[in-house]
Amino acid sequence: MGIVLGPNSYGKAEVRLVHVDRVGDRHAVRDLDVGTALAGDLEATHLTGDNSRVLPTDSQKNTVYAFARRHGVGSPEAFALLLASHFVDSQEAVRQARVSVREHPWQRLGPHSFQRGGGEVRTADVSHDGARTQVVSGISGLVLMNTTNSEFHGYVRDEYTTLPETTDRILATAVDARWRHLDADADWDTAYGQVRSALVAAFVETYSRSLQQTLYEMGRRVLDTREDLAEIRLSLPNRHHLPVDLSPFGLDNPNRVFVATDRPYGLIEGTVCRDDAPPGTGDW
Amino acid sequence: MGIVLGPNSYGKAEVRLVHVDRVGDRHAVRDLDVGTALAGDLEATHLTGDNSRVLPTDSQKNTVYAFARRHGVGSPEAFALLLASHFVDSQEAVRQARVSVREHPWQRLGPHSFQRGGGEVRTADVSHDGARTQVVSGISGLVLMNTTNSEFHGYVRDEYTTLPETTDRILATAVDARWRHLDADADWDTAYGQVRSALVAAFVETYSRSLQQTLYEMGRRVLDTREDLAEIRLSLPNRHHLPVDLSPFGLDNPNRVFVATDRPYGLIEGTVCRDDAPPGTGDW
Amino acid sequence: MGIVLGPNSYGKAEVRLVHVDRVGDRHAVRDLDVGTALAGDLEATHLTGDNSRVLPTDSQKNTVYAFARRHGVGSPEAFALLLASHFVDSQEAVRQARVSVREHPWQRLGPHSFQRGGGEVRTADVSHDGARTQVVSGISGLVLMNTTNSEFHGYVRDEYTTLPETTDRILATAVDARWRHLDADADWDTAYGQVRSALVAAFVETYSRSLQQTLYEMGRRVLDTREDLAEIRLSLPNRHHLPVDLSPFGLDNPNRVFVATDRPYGLIEGTVCRDDAPPGTGDW
Amino acid sequence: MGIVLGPNSYGKAEVRLVHVDRVGDRHAVRDLDVGTALAGDLEATHLTGDNSRVLPTDSQKNTVYAFARRHGVGSPEAFALLLASHFVDSQEAVRQARVSVREHPWQRLGPHSFQRGGGEVRTADVSHDGARTQVVSGISGLVLMNTTNSEFHGYVRDEYTTLPETTDRILATAVDARWRHLDADADWDTAYGQVRSALVAAFVETYSRSLQQTLYEMGRRVLDTREDLAEIRLSLPNRHHLPVDLSPFGLDNPNRVFVATDRPYGLIEGTVCRDDAPPGTGDW
Repeated sequence: MGIVLGPNSYGKAEVRLVHVDRVGDRHAVRDLDVGTALAGDLEATHLTGDNSRVLPTDSQKNTVYAFARRHGVGSPEAFALLLASHFVDSQEAVRQARVSVREHPWQRLGPHSFQRGGGEVRTADVSHDGARTQVVSGISGLVLMNTTNSEFHGYVRDEYTTLPETTDRILATAVDARWRHLDADADWDTAYGQVRSALVAAFVETYSRSLQQTLYEMGRRVLDTREDLAEIRLSLPNRHHLPVDLSPFGLDNPNRVFVATDRPYGLIEGTVCRDDAPPGTGDW
Repeated sequence: MGIVLGPNSYGKAEVRLVHVDRVGDRHAVRDLDVGTALAGDLEATHLTGDNSRVLPTDSQKNTVYAFARRHGVGSPEAFALLLASHFVDSQEAVRQARVSVREHPWQRLGPHSFQRGGGEVRTADVSHDGARTQVVSGISGLVLMNTTNSEFHGYVRDEYTTLPETTDRILATAVDARWRHLDADADWDTAYGQVRSALVAAFVETYSRSLQQTLYEMGRRVLDTREDLAEIRLSLPNRHHLPVDLSPFGLDNPNRVFVATDRPYGLIEGTVCRDDAPPGTGDW
Repeated sequence: MGIVLGPNSYGKAEVRLVHVDRVGDRHAVRDLDVGTALAGDLEATHLTGDNSRVLPTDSQKNTVYAFARRHGVGSPEAFALLLASHFVDSQEAVRQARVSVREHPWQRLGPHSFQRGGGEVRTADVSHDGARTQVVSGISGLVLMNTTNSEFHGYVRDEYTTLPETTDRILATAVDARWRHLDADADWDTAYGQVRSALVAAFVETYSRSLQQTLYEMGRRVLDTREDLAEIRLSLPNRHHLPVDLSPFGLDNPNRVFVATDRPYGLIEGTVCRDDAPPGTGDW
Repeated sequence: MGIVLGPNSYGKAEVRLVHVDRVGDRHAVRDLDVGTALAGDLEATHLTGDNSRVLPTDSQKNTVYAFARRHGVGSPEAFALLLASHFVDSQEAVRQARVSVREHPWQRLGPHSFQRGGGEVRTADVSHDGARTQVVSGISGLVLMNTTNSEFHGYVRDEYTTLPETTDRILATAVDARWRHLDADADWDTAYGQVRSALVAAFVETYSRSLQQTLYEMGRRVLDTREDLAEIRLSLPNRHHLPVDLSPFGLDNPNRVFVATDRPYGLIEGTVCRDDAPPGTGDW
């Protein structure tokens, strides 16, 4: 029985990059957090502190900025693909690179003026090992609410069940979704826009009997929209809005006054996938 | 020489209230955090724990919910005014009430579907002492950026100055503004919309030689827009975007690639006021 | 009637400074966030963008680091005093400087090894205008809990009161305290330790009939401990721990199982002062 | 080719539970966030909104509180084991339960008085599927710093490398560690204390040539300490402390004055394991 080094990686997290594209007087902005994680032949630095195969994380950060100048930032996915290939191709010790990008949207106010969008973040996670490339796109912080058309009843009642059934409640969630592409080539901005639209439309249009039903419908709608997607993983917190009991004050409350609670919250997680899609690689 | 009780208040903070107005199938949402702070004849509870003049903060919370049902939530300011008057009028020991409201905006997606807006928050702070009422409205979390039309040079150079002068930089800030109304009566939603538009327009349109200049122009524009405002206080963090030095990699960087830094940041704070406006009351 | 510039200031916020003092092999650490805010003859930059009287906030940041090297960091108060004097003395346009320091404690693990303390932060806020100097020390994030010896009853009951009275509850709070010194000279570390101890002891030892009573006792104890303090301001959120109703499951709950709630919370704020102390200057 | 439901689970997240154990006048406190996630035969609710096999997340929350009263909270691991078994044993549709506990430490100030510890959190993650049980313990938010005895040099230099080599730097990190037990039975509090001590001792005592070397040494030391551990996963952000260049001000800086940066940061992740340990189940 011995103690050994298992899976490992290293890189730079949260490299803040704002890229301004200038076409005459009209500017365009990409505001990104970039993370890199390299894996490979890295035993020596762990076991003896021999760094002769370690590309510093500082150099990885520099590469992000230099690549932004050299290649521009076409889309989060395209930028991540470039970086992932670079690290595997140029570093002998690196067998796999994962590059993750978080994009913060800005809305245009003028030719060179912008307002930062809210909590919504676009994500891209690329992994590349020389032979195989996997692209996962995503969104987080998209907070949606239906003030009706949501029911919840007919559930299991055990000895700890006190929840009253309802045929009309608020349904609210902060969408966190990741979808895996079958290919490493697409019009990424168009794809993102289509998936985002499908997620929102499915949430708005689904008459919901459980958040699970809404989750599945959101996933199904996305896969229907884009044939080049293998699967989508959704994590939907149930942001509970509880009707306040106003009867002690002689008042009714027909779904008008709610308290929005922070904790605890229901958390519904699920995957919707094509049954013939090849499996993905690694954790994402 | 004696030790005595000085200024004091108590109340409930962060009462989460979501109010749904239903006109037929079309719903409207107000999503608020409400805070109350009552002051008055409260020595006994401090000195001896005699609570006979203390209205529990739990009752204050209940009042918020009951008032939402009884009166609706017309606007943050109107709702705060109702509550502030109530506490002073109904509680013998209460000499002054401050009610603060933070509104989180939701954008409409359908008749009863909504998407939560970003970090932008609308604020209303009302104080009332029976005789006098003060209404302060505000906004926070409005993040704006100009990618050009900003300079910074001609400043003092002391022995600790190393900053290079620039005639073209990114100017970005998260606007935090509070404006004091001369009256306790207005079309609050319209007023808010006009002030917000003036703030944004002044930021976008001002060719800036310092963030102070932009601040003053924002304040001036707001007071020009609404004659019923006494003053506006602005707190503008300078969200520095620093051009990355790419020369070690043989690359130029004509304002294309920036690192957005978190800390430290410049913080510019200032008031713009009418010289004939009566002073406000208390801290806000 | 004209629109004019009112009170204003500018500076650098959240300058992160870690200072290591090395006495032989034994190191000592001071981990600070420093903020500066300068006020004075600053109309020109606001009205016309003329920066000829503006010392850049970047230079203020550099000064913080240079002073740490030149003078060391004796205590947050002493360091803030040095900086505040420097800006007023060296800059003709600066009439007043405020310097705020937040210190993050580290606990010693070895001669040059440390573990960062929790959420507790020590604060120092110095203002100086050439003639007068004010030193305010403080603490925030000190979270305390008594699991008994706290009652709450005998309060006002209005039509919105539903809270049950209790003779045994959990009392928990996150202490935020600021105390104003009469002088600008003291053994600051000793003073801080004494005040902190007095706050904790008063919280632990007070049999409480209201959080207000505990607040006053904490303040009184501090002023009793140090004769050189003019006043102390306390802001005490009531971190409610509510006994869970387990009766639906056939279980009693004699103060054993609680839910700790985030929002809303009671907020008790008050000042305890010497009746013969001169008033302080400005906001703090 | 069809669209199907893939892996899924649901549960309640962030159930806040404070349990007070009273032995005479001496109280003991356990302050937990509990999360549940159930998986099994849940297709119907996803596909049709039929909830007849869904135990509401509200009931799961109630179970947490009822179990705390019925069984007490011996340790995070023991409490999680009880809950995980309960859900699998009592719910026909549930094939697997994962229960995660985050414990916030409180330090004793008196028989029934406590101060909340800092950012350090103890974690326990239990999964149970009827046949097999896996227990993973952990810690997060343990922030450690060595002000010397850390070097970094001899690394790869590519065209983007500008980092200067150093033989004396600050090494600081926020330890996030998870260790998997071979058995589902142990003296969990003792085990936790031993692992925590080993992590701290290894960090303090290792003369470090890379954070990877420190990581491996921390893991090795833990596995040496407890034979009943299969593996440990460590995620160590490199909290960079950069010496400030004071040469523009005529000052040297022999590792005295540092700026602590927030972003970006190096992120070193690795597993140390026994080569003969059976593999774990699922993601953790």
